[in-house]
Formats: sequence, structure tokens, C-alpha cells
Amino acid sequence: MKKIAIFPGDGIGPEIVDAARLVLDAVDQAAGLQLQCTDGLVGGAALDAADDPLPEASLQLAMAADAVILGAVGGPCWDNLPPAKRPEQGLLRLRKHLDLFANLRPAQIFLQLLSASPLRPELVQDVDILVVRELTGDIYFGQPRGVEIVNGKRRGHNTMVYDEDEIRRIAHVAFKAAQGRRKQLCSVDKANVLETTRLWREVVTELAPEYPDVSLTHMYVDNAAMQLIRAPAQFDVLLTGNMFGDILSDEASQLTGSIGMLPSASLGEGRGMYEPIHGSAPDIAGQDKANPLATILSIAMMLRHSLGAEQWAQRVEMAVQKVLDAGLRTADIAAPGEAVIGTRAMGQAVVQAL
Amino acid sequence: MKKIAIFPGDGIGPEIVDAARLVLDAVDQAAGLQLQCTDGLVGGAALDAADDPLPEASLQLAMAADAVILGAVGGPCWDNLPPAKRPEQGLLRLRKHLDLFANLRPAQIFLQLLSASPLRPELVQDVDILVVRELTGDIYFGQPRGVEIVNGKRRGHNTMVYDEDEIRRIAHVAFKAAQGRRKQLCSVDKANVLETTRLWREVVTELAPEYPDVSLTHMYVDNAAMQLIRAPAQFDVLLTGNMFGDILSDEASQLTGSIGMLPSASLGEGRGMYEPIHGSAPDIAGQDKANPLATILSIAMMLRHSLGAEQWAQRVEMAVQKVLDAGLRTADIAAPGEAVIGTRAMGQAVVQAL
Ligand SMILES: CC(C)[C@H](C(=O)O)[C@@H](O)C(=O)O
Ligand SMILES: CC(C)[C@H](C(=O)O)[C@@H](O)C(=O)O
Repeated sequence: MKKIAIFPGDGIGPEIVDAARLVLDAVDQAAGLQLQCTDGLVGGAALDAADDPLPEASLQLAMAADAVILGAVGGPCWDNLPPAKRPEQGLLRLRKHLDLFANLRPAQIFLQLLSASPLRPELVQDVDILVVRELTGDIYFGQPRGVEIVNGKRRGHNTMVYDEDEIRRIAHVAFKAAQGRRKQLCSVDKANVLETTRLWREVVTELAPEYPDVSLTHMYVDNAAMQLIRAPAQFDVLLTGNMFGDILSDEASQLTGSIGMLPSASLGEGRGMYEPIHGSAPDIAGQDKANPLATILSIAMMLRHSLGAEQWAQRVEMAVQKVLDAGLRTADIAAPGEAVIGTRAMGQAVVQAL
Repeated sequence: MKKIAIFPGDGIGPEIVDAARLVLDAVDQAAGLQLQCTDGLVGGAALDAADDPLPEASLQLAMAADAVILGAVGGPCWDNLPPAKRPEQGLLRLRKHLDLFANLRPAQIFLQLLSASPLRPELVQDVDILVVRELTGDIYFGQPRGVEIVNGKRRGHNTMVYDEDEIRRIAHVAFKAAQGRRKQLCSVDKANVLETTRLWREVVTELAPEYPDVSLTHMYVDNAAMQLIRAPAQFDVLLTGNMFGDILSDEASQLTGSIGMLPSASLGEGRGMYEPIHGSAPDIAGQDKANPLATILSIAMMLRHSLGAEQWAQRVEMAVQKVLDAGLRTADIAAPGEAVIGTRAMGQAVVQAL
């Protein structure tokens, strides 16, 4: 019996999570997983209810769970709150407290949706990238930080910091992921300017002999931002720190043109959190318009990484391919003139296809 | 009489600078500018000659000049030198010593080369972006920095830092640039996570009332990396810090598909440095294959920003359009099967078209 904590969050979060629940329940019954699912509050929803983007009860719920499912957090009504009271803080604290240091973000083309890509089809048809982003270190959490008055002037500062252990553990994840894929690992840094990333390159390089079957290369972050557009099919696994990974994984996701399709996993030692990479889309919230497939594919990742149910992960992924093959589309992935279905109907269609 | 310091640098640097010189000399004579040009060493060339990527003589030459032209620096033979002895250090020290805080990087589509863009033509045909990147602050220069042993472990750290004066002076440059263009300024930050960039947003916002004709928006850096691919024509002027600008300006340049065409200016109070945005391309160095148009367009920027010769700047830009219209192409911008000409011939063609 496994415990799952579910945080629907804000905006379209509740709808996409409800649609994904249909799939999770169906798998649970068919596979006899005996999941014990409990809902909790995070982000803006938690701010409204408890004046805290991650109330203690939610943190405890997550700590007690084997896996966490998250919808999306944030929205304009919380944008003017002080820093510590912003929805994103709930997310950042969850990552840090659960020590979810490895963020896996696949950027994969769905051939049925090739025409949605902003890039020319011949450049993207073979794109299948896994971004492995470090998620609990770097300038996101580094101390000292803040805004002070120095000589009568406001001055802001943040600290980029990594020690060799932090680099090593995320690099191992990336090397292993590459072994299960096309065996190419490209590590991203700015070693020509930043000492922190020079250490990054050094430590990653030291591990290479342990993975003789993986070919390791290094690329400056500015060049990586270019190459992702120029020739994205060259990449297999991209390894990045937290800040560069934030930027590059979003860039990579956009290559597909269908960000509503892309899942993510954030893994620690033993526990995992699963969420779509898209945001809370407040403009379409509550209208049964949102695409639940990224959340459903996040559930596939959960089945794979937290529940030891690789076969069921693949069945969910195949079911998603089937509904796409059948021409079912939510508004975000429909070509002009194509018929669209709603959030819930898409969830039901995936259950059918299972 | 104006003094110009010319640093050809490494790789293809000398060739493209020589081709651009043809154009500069032609303008000088026709316009009676009476330029006094002196060559100097920087980057790998300077390391080889004087064991220093920016010898004192070069720095003095640059300080005494009204404008600096730079080819490109770097190459594999200097890649394994210690940090302080790398070609890039020459560039970074030039920027810092000359206080060239405003890096202007246009990412503009040449309609004749539309098919070179990795993006679908309808997305890029109207792209005309100016990235205004802060160039002398941020994590590039912040202290403390380095790699230390802490509790027996290697630990790297760098400091992102901006004070309000630094933010204000670059923001003024961006607001003014927007006034001369489509009057839209988008400032990039990560204000939901980094205090430094929260101050950035605050200070930029404070200046907005001084520019009532400019519409100011703010965008998180990860979203900007996405929007540049999804809908690049939405941007007019993009304002960034040094690190985010390094990444986003390279990404933006790639939208055009013809990075060999893109110039840049780095401006301080009174002095400017002009260089193509592409690198030193050691693989094709010395073969008369490189595209000199980015360097030639950098000379147009110099005529505009440092020599008060706007009309001549426009004439150079028009001459480049003419050679493109005439179907002249270097290898990097030729469509498959198209005839190509060499570096020097391209320089001569622009002189003809003037
Ligand atoms: C919401 C924000 C704090 C977060 C981040 O920057 O990590 C988001 O952009 C992401 O990538 O998950
Ligand atoms: C060579 C390098 C130090 C430089 C930078 O990072 O600024 C380059 O990438 C640039 O953008 O001019």
C-alpha cells in the first residue's frame, strides 16, 4: 500500500488533477496497487485558507507520502503579496524539505502534434530530450541573499553555490538516465566565467570513467540556448544546475509547441513529486478547457519512478498516444478548425484507451 | 579626427576585420572622417605574443580611442590555460575597464535569408528585437567568488549583485532605445525567486513615469526563453542583466538563423566597442570563408553611436541589403546549391554597393 499526497493547487490545477485522477484510479484498480490518496493545500489555495503557501499540515502530508502529485500554483491575485507569502514559495519549500534534488523534464515531440512546433518540422521530428535539472541548490537557495542599503543605495545580492556532493549526486542521476537512453550526456555550465560552474564541470568530468558507455560533452549555457533552437535533435540528456535548468528546460519544452503535453518528476532519495510543467493558466481556469495530458503523463512518471510499475507507466503513455492518434484534442493542441474536447472528456478518453 | 583601436583577435577575427576595414576606409574617405586607426592584440593572439589576454599596451590603446573594433577571441589551443590566462578574460577586462555597461544586440531578420531561420517563416518574418544587456555587473563580476575547501569538500560560489545606480543607467539606455523604436520595453528578471532581480524590477518600474510614451512590461527569464521561440515578434526592446542577457541574446540571435549577420555595440559614457556576436570559428579560420557582414554591420553601429555619422551608418546598412538582394552569399548564409563568395569578396561587394 502506497500513500499519495495530491495538491491540486491554483487556476486550472484542480481540473487537470481531477481528470488525471480518473486515470490513476483506473490503473489503481486494474493493477491492484491499493493507493491511499489524500488531498492537501499548497500555493495560492493554501494562502487563502491558511495564510501560508505551504501550511505545516501540507508539509506533513507530503513527508508521509511515497509520492506527491501537484497541479499548478500561482495566479494574479497573489502577485502583490510579500516574497515569503507567494504561491511559488510553497513549491520551493516542498522541493527543499523533501530534498527533491533531481528534476527530470522530458521534451519530447508527439508526431501527431508536429505542426504545433514553432520550429520547422525537419528540425524537431526527432527531438527527444531529457533535461536533468538540479533542484535544491544554486542561486535559488544560496546564502547570503537580500536587498540592503549600502552607502545610501539599495543593493541586491544572491549567491550561486554548489559543493561537490550536490554536483555529484545530480550528475549520477544524469549519467544513469543517459545509460537508459541514447547514451549521450551534455553538461551545461558557464565555466569560462563562473567558478561555481568550473567546479561543476570538474566534478562531472571526474565521474565519467564510471560510465564508460556514456559519451560526455560540455557546453556553455549561452551556446546551449542557441543549439536548442538551431539543432535540437543533437541532444539526448542535458544536465544543468537549478538556474540554467529553469531557463533551458522551459526553452526546450517550447520546441514541441505543446507544453500542455509535458510532464515532470522531481526526485529525492525515495520520494518523488510529479507535476505538469505548464502553469496555472488563470485565464482559462474553471472552464473545462485545460489539457490534462501533461498531468496524466506525470502520473505515468510516478508509476515508473515511485511505484515500481513500469509496465503501467508505459500503458498510460500508450493510451495517450492512442487518444492523439484518434484525433482527440483539447483547445491548446488543436489545429485551426479541428474539433476540441474538454478537460474531463480527455481524462475519460485516456481511461477508455487504457 | 577620431581614434579607432582595432583588435582583430583570433580565428576568423583577422579576416573579417580586414574585410570590414575595406568598408571603413571607403566611408572614411567619402565622408572625410579622418579616422586614425591603430591595431592591437587581445585574446589568444595577445596570450601568444605577451602572455596576457589584455596586455597593458592594448588597454592603453583602447582607453585612448574613441571607438574599438573587435573581431573575435578564443580557440581550442587556449582552452586549457588557467582561468586568468584565457582569451575571454581579455574581453571581460576590456568591458570592465572601459566601463562599457550597455550591450546592444539587435536580432533582426533579413528577409532575403528568411529560409535560414529554424523557425517557421510566419513566426519570424516580423522579428526585430533589440536586446539591451547590462555588461559590467551581475554574477560576472560579483565578489566574493571562487572555489574553496569547506569541511573537506570543494565548494564553488559566485555572487549576483546589482545596486540601484547600475540598474538605473542601463534601464535609461533601454527606455531611450525603445523611444526610437516601437516603444515597447520588456524587462526580464526572476523576481519570484531572486531578490537582486526583485530590486531590478522595482528600479526599472520607478523610471517608467519618465518615459510615458514607452509601454513597460516585466517577464520572468524562463518565460522569456519560451516566448522568444513561441512568438518572437511580440518583442521590441528586451532589457536584461548580464547573465540572463548572455543566454537570451544568444537565443534571440539564433531565431534569425544567420548569426553571421548580427552586430553588437557595447557602450559606456562616451566610448564604444563594436563586434560581431559570433565567435572565432577556428575550424574555418584562414580560409577566406567567414562572413564579414556582422563585422561590417558593427561598423555601421560605430558610425551611428561613436562617430555621429547616422547617415553613413544607414548607407552601410543599405549596402548590405543590396548585396543580399543581389544574391551574394558567404557559405554560412547560402541555401543548398547557391553560389558562394569569400570573405574578402564580400567586403569588396559592400564597398561597391556603397
Ligand atoms: C515557479 C518557479 C519558482 C519555478 C522555478 O523557477 O523553479 C518554475 O519556474 C519551475 O521551473 O518549476
Ligand atoms: C566569451 C564570453 C565571456 C562572453 C560572455 O559571456 O559575455 C560571450 O558569451 C558574450 O556574450 O559576449
